[in-house]
Amino acid sequence: MNKKIGNQTIKFASPPVIISAASIAGKKEGEGPLKKYFDVILSDNLKGEKSWEKAESKIVENTIKIAVYKAGLTIDDIDYIFGGDLLNQDTGSTFGVRNFRRPFFGLFGACSTMGEAMGLAAMAIDGGFAKNVIAGASSHFCASEKQFRFPLDMGNQRPQSSTWTITGDGTVVISNKGSGPRITHVTAGKIVDLGVKDANNMGAAMAPAACDTIVTHLKDTKRSPNYYDLIVTGDLGYVGHTLLKQLLAQEGIYINEEKITDCGIEIFNKTAQDTHSGGSGCACSAVTFCGYFYPKLKTGELKNILFIPTGALMSTTSSGQGESIPGIAHAIAIESRVK
Amino acid sequence: MNKKIGNQTIKFASPPVIISAASIAGKKEGEGPLKKYFDVILSDNLKGEKSWEKAESKIVENTIKIAVYKAGLTIDDIDYIFGGDLLNQDTGSTFGVRNFRRPFFGLFGACSTMGEAMGLAAMAIDGGFAKNVIAGASSHFCASEKQFRFPLDMGNQRPQSSTWTITGDGTVVISNKGSGPRITHVTAGKIVDLGVKDANNMGAAMAPAACDTIVTHLKDTKRSPNYYDLIVTGDLGYVGHTLLKQLLAQEGIYINEEKITDCGIEIFNKTAQDTHSGGSGCACSAVTFCGYFYPKLKTGELKNILFIPTGALMSTTSSGQGESIPGIAHAIAIESRVK
Repeated sequence: MNKKIGNQTIKFASPPVIISAASIAGKKEGEGPLKKYFDVILSDNLKGEKSWEKAESKIVENTIKIAVYKAGLTIDDIDYIFGGDLLNQDTGSTFGVRNFRRPFFGLFGACSTMGEAMGLAAMAIDGGFAKNVIAGASSHFCASEKQFRFPLDMGNQRPQSSTWTITGDGTVVISNKGSGPRITHVTAGKIVDLGVKDANNMGAAMAPAACDTIVTHLKDTKRSPNYYDLIVTGDLGYVGHTLLKQLLAQEGIYINEEKITDCGIEIFNKTAQDTHSGGSGCACSAVTFCGYFYPKLKTGELKNILFIPTGALMSTTSSGQGESIPGIAHAIAIESRVK
Repeated sequence: MNKKIGNQTIKFASPPVIISAASIAGKKEGEGPLKKYFDVILSDNLKGEKSWEKAESKIVENTIKIAVYKAGLTIDDIDYIFGGDLLNQDTGSTFGVRNFRRPFFGLFGACSTMGEAMGLAAMAIDGGFAKNVIAGASSHFCASEKQFRFPLDMGNQRPQSSTWTITGDGTVVISNKGSGPRITHVTAGKIVDLGVKDANNMGAAMAPAACDTIVTHLKDTKRSPNYYDLIVTGDLGYVGHTLLKQLLAQEGIYINEEKITDCGIEIFNKTAQDTHSGGSGCACSAVTFCGYFYPKLKTGELKNILFIPTGALMSTTSSGQGESIPGIAHAIAIESRVK
């Protein structure tokens, strides 16, 4: 049975159900506009651990436990864990899932990882390979700054185009039965690299990939952007979001302001929490989806959304060697099934 | 349709076909016992590029081109590329596939990545989500030493338990039709961490994971190890291979010497090329499978194999923070279909 439609979109035969979602967010995220939506807000981003990296792994572990508990399952009911993060060699996820003793697929899609994980997890379900799978992604502001930029203690000045890496983890349980919003389509993204080299302007590096995936998804599904209650990108921030709308306009696609947003914009208060261009990191789309959008889909307040986590696939080495920043974005179409 | 058997094994309904395989190997690998099996042997591990990282990406790009050409396809026939490597943020793969403009799933399974890629690729095919997919993995000795250990110029002494990271890339094209060996089962691995902390003894860190996956696979499929012509692990090397046999014996599983081997043992000449414990790296299992075992399966010289790429999921940061090394291993059962 061929489930591929158009050039690069999957239409599921039996749309997998997102039966639960959990989110843990950091202190700063917990002071923002979404504070009442997260399951847990950390009072301390070290979470009682001795390093930020160990804290991130503990956050991953706990978020998975909450998601599995909310689903009414135990960890042994989980067939596969799909997850990833920003740390070198994916150690945030690896050490986070280490104690669960369940089959693990480590992913790296930078900040698009939640989309990659949800897409592959849904394929595992619809393909008949699993009954319950976990998809999740995490990031940690302090660990990321240390790894990708400068020691926090240096108090380096951030340019206006820079975004603030989210501390947290968002995890969903996706199943072949049960109640909840369903994943109907996945449009996995191509790498798009228009030559942006400024690692402090990842929004600009990722916007062309987001545009490419959205245009492809709409063409493949023969849908108008108005089909969706909301089109939600991952972490373009203000700069990338503005660019995305310009790029879409060049493709003849105009979306009403209230029908397109970005998790990096939703998660912080623009003025009171001045993060410059907004939020970013694997956890940006993950916690915003799990905490904020998932419940709205579950109750039917949102009929459907196109969720498009976005990633900037560079490393300090590639940037140091003068490479541009390849962008990628995976689109997940999710429908509420509440009448 | 439920394709899961036992605790963690997939049995494919329509076993996906490996229609082609390609390998590019480094200079040292090209001087070893498998030299006549690789498609390309590099005369210079920089491959005309300005850095080892750029060279690795070029190797990835070229290996994919060869695999697609051998399959009689063009890159536009490829629905998805599944790939990964050892470099921070998977940049070996990202920059290697950047120009292809095909949907990309970046993976991180350390040296088990070829198993993870082949498993997910086969799921994409059998699930009806794709017609042709690519699975590949790469590594580069110089880039790895620089990133994980010491500058090459330092001439650091390597302990006897250490392995030599393979320079190269192995890539397969997996399809829903065509001729070639077929992937019948996938047993995705759990993380197993028995507390080994010595990053110069990755064989010891990974052997328990390999044992766990093999035992689980045999139990799930109700097969005896003798069912397979060959059980091939990824990069345990001499130390890890010896440990694996001891661990299997503790589980009551005894495998004849000639029916179990390791790609890290096959790829170098033990005495003439003294690499200490053998070969390792994502490319170790990838090039050995693509170059050496795939043709034997294609001709029927091997009736079937259980191929188990093994990975050590640590980073320099996790080791520096005193963490042990989590191991993982994914088993891919492959059958020749030549009568």
